[in-house]
Amino acid sequence: MPSESELEALRKEVREITNEIIRLIGLRLSLAKRINEVKRFMGLPIIDYKVERDLKSSVIDSCKKYNVDERFGLRLLNLLIDEAVRAQKISIDEGKKAISVIDMFVLAKRMEREGSKVIHLEVGEPDFGPPKRVKRATYDAISKGYTHYTEPSGILNLREDIANSVSERYGIDVSPEQVAITSGGRFSVYASILSILSPGDEAIVIQPAWPAYVDCIEAMRGRTISIKTNLEEGWRPDIESISNLINNSTKMIIINYPNNPTGKVLEKRGMKALVDLAMERNVTILSDEVYSNYSFKPFNSILEFHDCKSICVSSFSKSYGMTGFRIGYAVSDVETIRKISRIQALAFTSVPEFIQYAAIEALKCKDDVKRYANIIRERIDMVCKTLKKMNLSYYEPDGAFYVFPQISKDRSFDAGKFALDLLKEKKVCVAPGITFGDYPNFIRISACQSENLLLEGLRRMCEVLR
Amino acid sequence: MPSESELEALRKEVREITNEIIRLIGLRLSLAKRINEVKRFMGLPIIDYKVERDLKSSVIDSCKKYNVDERFGLRLLNLLIDEAVRAQKISIDEGKKAISVIDMFVLAKRMEREGSKVIHLEVGEPDFGPPKRVKRATYDAISKGYTHYTEPSGILNLREDIANSVSERYGIDVSPEQVAITSGGRFSVYASILSILSPGDEAIVIQPAWPAYVDCIEAMRGRTISIKTNLEEGWRPDIESISNLINNSTKMIIINYPNNPTGKVLEKRGMKALVDLAMERNVTILSDEVYSNYSFKPFNSILEFHDCKSICVSSFSKSYGMTGFRIGYAVSDVETIRKISRIQALAFTSVPEFIQYAAIEALKCKDDVKRYANIIRERIDMVCKTLKKMNLSYYEPDGAFYVFPQISKDRSFDAGKFALDLLKEKKVCVAPGITFGDYPNFIRISACQSENLLLEGLRRMCEVLR
Repeated sequence: MPSESELEALRKEVREITNEIIRLIGLRLSLAKRINEVKRFMGLPIIDYKVERDLKSSVIDSCKKYNVDERFGLRLLNLLIDEAVRAQKISIDEGKKAISVIDMFVLAKRMEREGSKVIHLEVGEPDFGPPKRVKRATYDAISKGYTHYTEPSGILNLREDIANSVSERYGIDVSPEQVAITSGGRFSVYASILSILSPGDEAIVIQPAWPAYVDCIEAMRGRTISIKTNLEEGWRPDIESISNLINNSTKMIIINYPNNPTGKVLEKRGMKALVDLAMERNVTILSDEVYSNYSFKPFNSILEFHDCKSICVSSFSKSYGMTGFRIGYAVSDVETIRKISRIQALAFTSVPEFIQYAAIEALKCKDDVKRYANIIRERIDMVCKTLKKMNLSYYEPDGAFYVFPQISKDRSFDAGKFALDLLKEKKVCVAPGITFGDYPNFIRISACQSENLLLEGLRRMCEVLR
Repeated sequence: MPSESELEALRKEVREITNEIIRLIGLRLSLAKRINEVKRFMGLPIIDYKVERDLKSSVIDSCKKYNVDERFGLRLLNLLIDEAVRAQKISIDEGKKAISVIDMFVLAKRMEREGSKVIHLEVGEPDFGPPKRVKRATYDAISKGYTHYTEPSGILNLREDIANSVSERYGIDVSPEQVAITSGGRFSVYASILSILSPGDEAIVIQPAWPAYVDCIEAMRGRTISIKTNLEEGWRPDIESISNLINNSTKMIIINYPNNPTGKVLEKRGMKALVDLAMERNVTILSDEVYSNYSFKPFNSILEFHDCKSICVSSFSKSYGMTGFRIGYAVSDVETIRKISRIQALAFTSVPEFIQYAAIEALKCKDDVKRYANIIRERIDMVCKTLKKMNLSYYEPDGAFYVFPQISKDRSFDAGKFALDLLKEKKVCVAPGITFGDYPNFIRISACQSENLLLEGLRRMCEVLR
């Protein structure tokens, strides 16, 4: 018979167990600290995926044994690991920090305020604006009073048009319920990661990569598992390495073709192998395809692989020169799209209504898309020719806006310092390779400026390299 | 001397301790389950803040004793409590779910698709659009090519204008670095909560409240601590009750005056008492002031209390009829604004550039703001008069868009069902009180429609009530 005294006794027990848990956590943290000291002494990396994976299986076993929700157990474990890393980071001198593309941008802006003229080869924003028709459509929509909240997933007309356009392009059958209109491709990425991962879950990122993926994963306390690709192998990801990293916590693989920064497009066979792996291991593929209209060789969307759990992200920013409109979209299964829309509803309700009408008009501007792609392609060819003359190694881009040359064969070469010198001495801003992962001897050159500016920027770069 | 074998031994110990932690958690969960059974049998509420507070002090003591970071310990405790609540929620029959404002809206939309004409008294979106000058300014900005990415915190001109306008209005001194332009007031709320709270941290929400606060707190796995206010006491929050709920996990108190849904404006003395408490206990006040231009009696912004850690949220949506532009702002200390901007950079870069220019123009439209406020005030007066004739109890709004009448003195009255009947039988949509907290016998009527529609809606409501 339940009573006040039983309740009191139960509460006392809970309190004691809670305190015992805290005691063990304190013990665990001190052991982790000792492990890190040992590792540092032995020159081993702080994070060891293999050891972590073993620990995870052991935690999963315990969860089963003691009737604890597995996902909760893994989440808790990852919090413990993070706290151990955090606790020891405080004690380590964080001395030399890598120079990021943001540092570069801020410095360039400061120089401009002080009167310098900087050539911006670091930004991923094309110099051409939106087609005239899009501008006019925006104004028409405002005049008509399309200035209200919309459904979080976006207005039906636009979702229909996107569903049709995507279906036609890839020979598939997508419904408007499978489309969410988001604030740029970026919010699609953000909301996708938030809706698929729980804190402590893992996502595999193929490097080099746009830093937003890692930033989003870390912001929601997920864990980034990085896998490197390299120039020598044509930036092709190794399927077996990816396979080895997948475990019960792995919820997502993030891919981006045409790739920022390398310009790589993964051929169909490679896509197929990735898709097969993802299906076999029940992992969602997040495919960032914002550069798909800038493919210079055949491009295969993740959407062509029907059976795979995937989210395809695209955007109006790059294809239509509409960066400042902040509109993009995600295509996925109905349930995932609902989750993404709920996150958007939570964060800011919906994309401005009249901007959604502008996007409807943009979808009709197919000639502009082709024209823009040709402009970028010619510039990239020109950049490549110049880099060749400079005797630098690079991958000839299959698409996107960028060339990603190796500035030195020597991995100890500090391209961050090089980029800084280039900016200070020659007023040319480029993105250091370290922005995109462990690529200290690379830089990214963006073809978003006129040929003249590009050529002048490269000429000055050549002077510093000499 | 550190060695491979020491490392192995340490790792083994970590694994064993981790598994022991999981075992204790399993035990703890089963005890929590038993406690909840006992509580249910005895008719006690599931969550007991007093017991929680004792548990927390005991955890803090343990943290000190065993050298665990206090915040980490408390966060962990909150996760354990949440998991216990979650685990048992699954086992309870979730049968009767409260009807939310979203359910109402979806049903109303379905009825409309099927040909019905619904009177929408549930939406918080005024029927007047933006001033003409704002529309023109948007188009001008697009024509001038303001279609690019901007700084995540927003363009300097707009931040300056807001800083000046706020400084002038409240007799304070705010700099542009203390302002972040966000996608509506909603994103300010979202990013504020995300930047101040860590998972497991607590935020106090004064009910009745706009559901977005709780949604945002829960989305990032914080804990909502609700405190009720009531009609009989003029919706005045009790400072002592709030004080009793504050503990080391409490990071934020969320206030919203003029209030949605009650229309309450807290007078200066009340604000001062809240501010003093927040300062004494080192808690940030998040003050949602999106209705501040709709105050019918003196309004005090949180910004007038300089020494208090606070974030003031405002928006162009309500004041300028610009809901569909999705632009608002946060004002706080420089460091917090930086955090909010970083979250915005992560989620979608920035608010569209030309919309920021439109907002610059909006700030000049002071006459429109006054005109809009007068329209709403007249409608609210009219609604109140009608409710009085219907013999319903309500608080005469000091501001905002809404009236929040008590439909029945009987707390077992189901205003959700009432709202549903009203919609189905009379095609009038209102927001059930349960949307805003534990107010099952209230509904919210929004004054965002014309007087005619409002009167007709109330007339039909009267028929159902009879």
